[in-house]
Amino acid sequence: MSKSKIDPVLAHIDANIESTTAHLFDLLRIPSVSTDPRFKSECDRAADWLVQDLNSIGFTASKRVTTGNPMVIAHGRGTGTHVLFYGHYDVQPVDPLDLWDSPPFEPVLEQGDLGPVIRARGASDDKGQLMTFVEACRSWNAVHGSLPGRISLFFEGEEESGSPSLVPFMTENAAELTADIALICDTGLLGNDTPGIVTRLRGMLGEELTITGPSKDLHSGMYGGAAINPARVLAKIISTLHDDAGHITIPEFYDGVPELSSEMAGQWDGLNFDSAGFLGQVGLSELAGEKGRTALEMIWSRPTCEVNGIWGGYTGAGFKTVLPSQASAKISFRLVGEQDPHKIRSNFRAMVRSLLPADCSVEFKSHGASAGCEMGIDSPSFEDARVALSDEWPEASAFVGCGGSIPIAGHFKNILGMDAMLIGFARDNDAIHSPNEKYDLRSFQKGIRSWARILNQIYIKE
Amino acid sequence: MSKSKIDPVLAHIDANIESTTAHLFDLLRIPSVSTDPRFKSECDRAADWLVQDLNSIGFTASKRVTTGNPMVIAHGRGTGTHVLFYGHYDVQPVDPLDLWDSPPFEPVLEQGDLGPVIRARGASDDKGQLMTFVEACRSWNAVHGSLPGRISLFFEGEEESGSPSLVPFMTENAAELTADIALICDTGLLGNDTPGIVTRLRGMLGEELTITGPSKDLHSGMYGGAAINPARVLAKIISTLHDDAGHITIPEFYDGVPELSSEMAGQWDGLNFDSAGFLGQVGLSELAGEKGRTALEMIWSRPTCEVNGIWGGYTGAGFKTVLPSQASAKISFRLVGEQDPHKIRSNFRAMVRSLLPADCSVEFKSHGASAGCEMGIDSPSFEDARVALSDEWPEASAFVGCGGSIPIAGHFKNILGMDAMLIGFARDNDAIHSPNEKYDLRSFQKGIRSWARILNQIYIKE
Repeated sequence: MSKSKIDPVLAHIDANIESTTAHLFDLLRIPSVSTDPRFKSECDRAADWLVQDLNSIGFTASKRVTTGNPMVIAHGRGTGTHVLFYGHYDVQPVDPLDLWDSPPFEPVLEQGDLGPVIRARGASDDKGQLMTFVEACRSWNAVHGSLPGRISLFFEGEEESGSPSLVPFMTENAAELTADIALICDTGLLGNDTPGIVTRLRGMLGEELTITGPSKDLHSGMYGGAAINPARVLAKIISTLHDDAGHITIPEFYDGVPELSSEMAGQWDGLNFDSAGFLGQVGLSELAGEKGRTALEMIWSRPTCEVNGIWGGYTGAGFKTVLPSQASAKISFRLVGEQDPHKIRSNFRAMVRSLLPADCSVEFKSHGASAGCEMGIDSPSFEDARVALSDEWPEASAFVGCGGSIPIAGHFKNILGMDAMLIGFARDNDAIHSPNEKYDLRSFQKGIRSWARILNQIYIKE
Repeated sequence: MSKSKIDPVLAHIDANIESTTAHLFDLLRIPSVSTDPRFKSECDRAADWLVQDLNSIGFTASKRVTTGNPMVIAHGRGTGTHVLFYGHYDVQPVDPLDLWDSPPFEPVLEQGDLGPVIRARGASDDKGQLMTFVEACRSWNAVHGSLPGRISLFFEGEEESGSPSLVPFMTENAAELTADIALICDTGLLGNDTPGIVTRLRGMLGEELTITGPSKDLHSGMYGGAAINPARVLAKIISTLHDDAGHITIPEFYDGVPELSSEMAGQWDGLNFDSAGFLGQVGLSELAGEKGRTALEMIWSRPTCEVNGIWGGYTGAGFKTVLPSQASAKISFRLVGEQDPHKIRSNFRAMVRSLLPADCSVEFKSHGASAGCEMGIDSPSFEDARVALSDEWPEASAFVGCGGSIPIAGHFKNILGMDAMLIGFARDNDAIHSPNEKYDLRSFQKGIRSWARILNQIYIKE
């Protein structure tokens, strides 16, 4: 492994961080909110900005029309392992605006707990993160006159609004988009100093159920004690979904849930995850999941069944003595391994129906179903990235899990047959999707350096 | 018992029903909505209208100022049993106005399922009902030149907005208001043909609880499976409040709940209550309360614990994978016999606290507490009324219960030491509190005749 190629690139990154940050500010000033049609032209403008920028640093970039916001595709001319980097240029809405300390689309540098932070909507999610990769390419290109290898980029502008165009576009352009491995920069550090490579994501199954008893709301004086109350029925059903040990009671629910390999368990143990801090920062002191599991197992490798919303009857101020006609809940399942979301949906619905008392009916709504996703980490790029990240950060990098669901990783796997490496530099306190979003300048600078090191590790070693 | 006094009164009522109805229309045209301060002067006008009307038929009536809407008090000059008749001249708001087929304060006669109906806000609740008694007095006075006995009237104008002035006013004017028995016309017939005298009302205890787990809403990907979910905790607690037989599990809850006397049970059986129809009209087919109880027992003589509202987490359209920080419910108890609402509140709260898992806290709000109310029906007026009503209506009258809570009856008992007879002629389909409220002309006419017969039974027999 040669260090001669990377050292001047790292030096270039550090020497130019001020102008690089100013350049990011230009992108952050474009209010590319994808959930609001009024900002459609701004999304277009952000795509144009990226196309122009990429064309200036050794890529051939173009904007691709969809029925929604455009995609940006860029290809470099290098050789070797073909990597496809993914990010999204659209951002979340800014409401409530009055909770921002400065205008969300006028980025500023402020002092944070670990040094300067870039404050703006999208600073972390995902403009700042996607630009870490672009800036690594820029510096490499500036220092060496070309990109280090065969690199493509793929940016979408609808991630914050459910990516309606993504799957059709990937399907139609599969040949162009398929590479040896995908790189995704939309995740975070573990703590402040440990970079993680996410190799497993939980899937998600969303269900909404509405239980109907009486045909209309009843007066609880006239009918109370005689008529079935769907809010009580719903509570009973929800309370039946877990046993006292925290296990989910839906038949065949645990089919396809693998036990963690001892190797992976060892890596996770090595992270010395601060379970007390993880709980403490949200006011909790005890793990409430399956008995006998660690916090990381609970959130990375075990499936869940959670109530995300519940409502029925009178919920306003004061009191109304109503026996509700209906009660509803939104319930989601996080899935792992080979759990089949469609079988679980069907078994869940059958179980709810079996628990319904006389005179009650139930209606279900589906809110998405995706299986868990586990990367095959045999590709040498995974180990390359781990070594490179460990060189850059105070703590060694590790293969980790992610409790959430990042659909793009599943799409790369299912549509294009590619594994994805999810590497990101966000911090838990970045306030993504919230007022006063920020990205540490340290995340930005060390993020750029991290990608330079990863590209160096992948290509120069070859 | 003489019939000579009553027959000409009944004839006078029937002969004058057209002008009597027109007179009611005058009162119905006054929009005396007590919940809306914009109608304060209209409430005043309704009180003035009543004062003037009562002064014209043998009473000495006056308007009494309160901090809210005025009371109307009237005394006649008769002798014998002192009865105090109660009603309220205020009405519910009319929203949504666009669901009315005719303007709510422009009363009209229309055809209903049992003959003509009077359509207007307040036609049934309570202007039409209170005027049944006034018109009985008017006819008696017109025919015999004086009232039949010692009659007082007491009208309030805040019943639909929680009666804030009522208890202070009753307390301050206890001597003037105390009579031998109170008469209240704010209830309904059983079916179409059976007049009931309500001798027991259930009390009401309202509780609102909010369970807090995490200090803020959490992402169900990041924390799901590890953090406690207060919506699940709430569901578990609610499901614990009843056992499989429908009994309420709160310690000492049934202390003071009497078994129904065999005499009363016999009267209720004699009503041939249409349990299937009662359930069927709201889309139900099975009694869902305590196993082994009849429908009338469930709603008149047994206590309840019901969820009136439940909410927590994300309840809007679509889906949000949030682990809620809080979940809340409004829970009410209907109470009977000697059940102590304060003890039940305290035992309920202790039970909820005992069911809270680690890291959860609970806050309670009180929404009123009133004990059940059972009349001592030894007073001969109860039997007088039952006989009189049975003479007027196709079916025999009975002493019945009421599943709801009518606070004024408790106030008469607790503040003035008087039992109350609740007699009313409303029908289930009167749409009180709803658009297109109506009162059957038959209810109005036979209601007036009923009160004339009751007064005859009480006084002329003496």
